Amino acid sequence: MDLLLTYDVDTTSPAGRRRLRRVAKHCEGHGLRVQKSVFEIVADEKTLLKLLHDLDQIIDSDTDSIRLYRLPTDGFNHVQTLGIAQIQPHREDLVL
Amino acid sequence: MDLLLTYDVDTTSPAGRRRLRRVAKHCEGHGLRVQKSVFEIVADEKTLLKLLHDLDQIIDSDTDSIRLYRLPTDGFNHVQTLGIAQIQPHREDLVL
Repeated sequence: MDLLLTYDVDTTSPAGRRRLRRVAKHCEGHGLRVQKSVFEIVADEKTLLKLLHDLDQIIDSDTDSIRLYRLPTDGFNHVQTLGIAQIQPHREDLVL
Repeated sequence: MDLLLTYDVDTTSPAGRRRLRRVAKHCEGHGLRVQKSVFEIVADEKTLLKLLHDLDQIIDSDTDSIRLYRLPTDGFNHVQTLGIAQIQPHREDLVL
């Protein structure tokens, strides 16, 4: 599945800034960071469940927010971009 | 179409902070702000083209980035959320 994960973490406290780093680090293990708080992730249901569970342990559910959108198949390749945004390669093309 | 618009604007300068406000304000005219720099937008192709054109006039294309994802039909209602994130109503339900 092609997934888009976006988050807002309250960084007004040192603890919040730590949570932000941990959320980003955890997402980096699962996909591509395409903007400061936006990740493109390719995952199956099982991996997704684990990812959401892990993130839920990291965030402060009273102040932080995570949203996870399911994109159509090949959704990453149809993103429209402005400015420095670029379409990121997810699946290495087969080099024959 | 259900669309997800995400952006990063370089706010290290006063001009950047002005651009950020203008991008957010412009997007508020087209959809729902669901996180600091994430908007859920329902638009047709023509409106979308105009929106992207307008945003392109606002941002600094050397430092800022805008990404626009097409979601499956009813994509907003299948978003998974953690923390304070909530599914936002887009189309008022018919009150019979």
